[in-house]
Amino acid sequence: MAELKNLTKRSENYSQWYNELVVKADLAEQSAVRGCMVIKPYGYAIWEKMQRQLDDMFKATGHVNAYFPLLIPKSFLSREAEHVEGFAKECAVVTHYRLKNAEDGSGVVVDPAAKLEEELIIRPTSETIIWSTYKNWIQSYRDLPILCNQWANVLRWEMRTRLFLRTAEFLWQEGHTAHATREEAEQEAVRMLNVYADFAENYMAMPVIKGVKSETERFAGAIDTYTIEALMQDGKALQSGTSHFLGQNFAKAFDVQFLDKDNKLSYVWATSWGVSTRLMGALIMSHSDDNGLVLPPHLAPIQVVIIPIYKNQEQLAAISEKADSITAELRKRGISVKYDNADNKRPGFKFADYELKGVPVRLVIGGRDMENNTVEVMRRDTLEKETVSCDGITDYVAELLETIQKNIFEKARKFRDANIRCADSYDQFKEMIEEGGFILAHWDGTPETEARIKEETKATIRCIPDGFDTTPGVCMVTGKPSARRVLFARSY
Amino acid sequence: MAELKNLTKRSENYSQWYNELVVKADLAEQSAVRGCMVIKPYGYAIWEKMQRQLDDMFKATGHVNAYFPLLIPKSFLSREAEHVEGFAKECAVVTHYRLKNAEDGSGVVVDPAAKLEEELIIRPTSETIIWSTYKNWIQSYRDLPILCNQWANVLRWEMRTRLFLRTAEFLWQEGHTAHATREEAEQEAVRMLNVYADFAENYMAMPVIKGVKSETERFAGAIDTYTIEALMQDGKALQSGTSHFLGQNFAKAFDVQFLDKDNKLSYVWATSWGVSTRLMGALIMSHSDDNGLVLPPHLAPIQVVIIPIYKNQEQLAAISEKADSITAELRKRGISVKYDNADNKRPGFKFADYELKGVPVRLVIGGRDMENNTVEVMRRDTLEKETVSCDGITDYVAELLETIQKNIFEKARKFRDANIRCADSYDQFKEMIEEGGFILAHWDGTPETEARIKEETKATIRCIPDGFDTTPGVCMVTGKPSARRVLFARSY
Repeated sequence: MAELKNLTKRSENYSQWYNELVVKADLAEQSAVRGCMVIKPYGYAIWEKMQRQLDDMFKATGHVNAYFPLLIPKSFLSREAEHVEGFAKECAVVTHYRLKNAEDGSGVVVDPAAKLEEELIIRPTSETIIWSTYKNWIQSYRDLPILCNQWANVLRWEMRTRLFLRTAEFLWQEGHTAHATREEAEQEAVRMLNVYADFAENYMAMPVIKGVKSETERFAGAIDTYTIEALMQDGKALQSGTSHFLGQNFAKAFDVQFLDKDNKLSYVWATSWGVSTRLMGALIMSHSDDNGLVLPPHLAPIQVVIIPIYKNQEQLAAISEKADSITAELRKRGISVKYDNADNKRPGFKFADYELKGVPVRLVIGGRDMENNTVEVMRRDTLEKETVSCDGITDYVAELLETIQKNIFEKARKFRDANIRCADSYDQFKEMIEEGGFILAHWDGTPETEARIKEETKATIRCIPDGFDTTPGVCMVTGKPSARRVLFARSY
Repeated sequence: MAELKNLTKRSENYSQWYNELVVKADLAEQSAVRGCMVIKPYGYAIWEKMQRQLDDMFKATGHVNAYFPLLIPKSFLSREAEHVEGFAKECAVVTHYRLKNAEDGSGVVVDPAAKLEEELIIRPTSETIIWSTYKNWIQSYRDLPILCNQWANVLRWEMRTRLFLRTAEFLWQEGHTAHATREEAEQEAVRMLNVYADFAENYMAMPVIKGVKSETERFAGAIDTYTIEALMQDGKALQSGTSHFLGQNFAKAFDVQFLDKDNKLSYVWATSWGVSTRLMGALIMSHSDDNGLVLPPHLAPIQVVIIPIYKNQEQLAAISEKADSITAELRKRGISVKYDNADNKRPGFKFADYELKGVPVRLVIGGRDMENNTVEVMRRDTLEKETVSCDGITDYVAELLETIQKNIFEKARKFRDANIRCADSYDQFKEMIEEGGFILAHWDGTPETEARIKEETKATIRCIPDGFDTTPGVCMVTGKPSARRVLFARSY
């Protein structure tokens, strides 16, 4: 128990709190391979819930899953010029395909005879390999749209990594769609951003601001990058999902044309969109507290834990009977329940452990509860306890889970809203940025000014947000005209 | 339609029939990367159904999912001597982590400055990286058992590849468990083999023979490899799943010890077990015919297709209303239905296409059906048609799907059983092996005899099977004593 509880406080060192929490709550850990993480069973169970929900949402919007190769011929990367400039450089390169025994018996060495003619790259993202495939799938407008998604691992050779937030290998989904018209592709990119926003708010309980990226922050190869931006408790922004309108860039790079209804050849229009295990980091940092994780009920692998407190085996048997009946009733309602009657851990240890793991509702049944036909209910979000009658406990818990889901969202929304401020001068901006949060400010629209702000304040333009104040003004830095305020923050 | 139908017949060229079918039924195709396939949406939808079912069965037997790194330090592979000897040689080797622009502007080249100190291998299987992780998870008997599974891609540099059956990259699940005792680990290995057999027979409708591999055919690093072996329509065997009792080999290689209840340090006992997208090949070859795929209803992404035949829009509207009501009723029963009213394809084309794709049940509704309140029902397994009243059609179809599932299994089982024969001399064995099928024969138990049989007949020992004739005899090749008949076949 001592070990569970000595989590660094957020106020002391937020970054350390996060790193410790990820490990102590059994979510993930560093592996023997630099920058690559092991996602532990409890962490993976949360990711599986995210995956299942997102996958259902993708299918409900007409998408299908497929699988494309892990490896990409090196030459593919240079086909789309901006793409390769933008980020296809830091990646793992496969140069050989065989090992052999070392002559000195010391182990295995790379067989120099097994050198590839063309090196292969572990996918950092799959636009190139997918568009080289789509070329064969698309001849006529009848073959469109193609609405594919893939769940996959990708790898980018990051120099500074943090569990979930930035790892060399990570898991994600990447949607890649092909359309006959520009309008349809643009609508698709926006549709998927809305799916992400819906998922973030209604499942992760994480409020997000939708918007479009500046040219500098755009995905390499995209015409427009749409984004959802969330605010973490330390006042830094976290980009939580992006959806790209790719125009005809990849179709041109891979020569993907189709015969339209008028029998004319045109290049295909494209989108791509993705969210990754980075969402795990966002989830953790949005809600958790100094006692550990706070999970939204909609994504908690264990929604309810029941813990018995007993003096002897006879009492335990009676409590277990009651617990089993409550468990069965809750499961009928689709609620996931764990009854923890392990006798090698004390109740206090279990309490701390399930708090650390963010289980939304804890039920405790002791001797007095058995006499009074009650249970003690604790909700993880507020840590409030209440003694409740066993009659109607199923309804009570089901409602409480929804209440917690809403409360977590509202709390995060209030925090976020309280931390969106307008800066009207660069000095004011510099002060505000030290305090954290989102800042709405005027910008002259140039990459130069954007770069200067980033260098001087470490703040970036998170997006040109949907809504908010759209009146023109003057750039806080240069005094040049500004079309509207854009959203700045320091970010993960 | 012409294009759909010109599938090579199995009797003409089984191998070509398979290759064509995989592509024509939109299951998979070759990619731009040697030996790596693209799994197309229809093929992936079948794989997803397999995954979901297997995952449920793993969880029902107490397993949890996790995720371990794609890349493995080269030195890990040589820790377990037999493991590296056995198969860890033909694999993709990452030597560099960055590309840079070519000086001549011709694209990107590997940056020689970004050479890794130690090369990384793309996992051909994950025992080594997982046991290096388990070392940190296991201190005491209280940490055991660990029952982890991972869904992942793996890569083995195969020289001769075939879609699904043998590809460089493939998708699979790999279970890796850690136990306090030998008995518990052995039981786990057998338990998971039984899960695979259950899945093969009751979902894939594919009868399998369970058994244990000979020393030669054993997984490199295992004490025992259990296997399920299926018989394809061309008389060749296909190893469909394996479960390994690894003893303490990997625990010793990675120094994973635990304090037992008596406070004594012992090495941990291990199993690993896996099935892969190879099962897709097994599924296709077990049941399909010259018209295309035959899918067992339990794994068919579309279980029922409804096709209207109409003279005009008014008639189509009436048929659609009926079709919608049948669709809704079937879906309520958890049956997946597609109503194909696309007006740019003729009914004949649709019929051929859904036959090719193996949809188990086809309902056709035409003008006369509307008058008579009937539908025409065709079952894909036998191609039999029947006209059935719309009253009670839901029950009829639900039952028919189960009938088809059973019938496909029974057909495969009869074929398999008719092709298990005993050979009592090596000459007889050589004759029989040309005719295909499983052959039960006596073998002296030595790797030398096994190797000779393989060289001379291309047959291998598929397993020492559960059951069958266990009386001792004499080896058909050497005349030396044989403990019992073992199961031979040529195989994929």
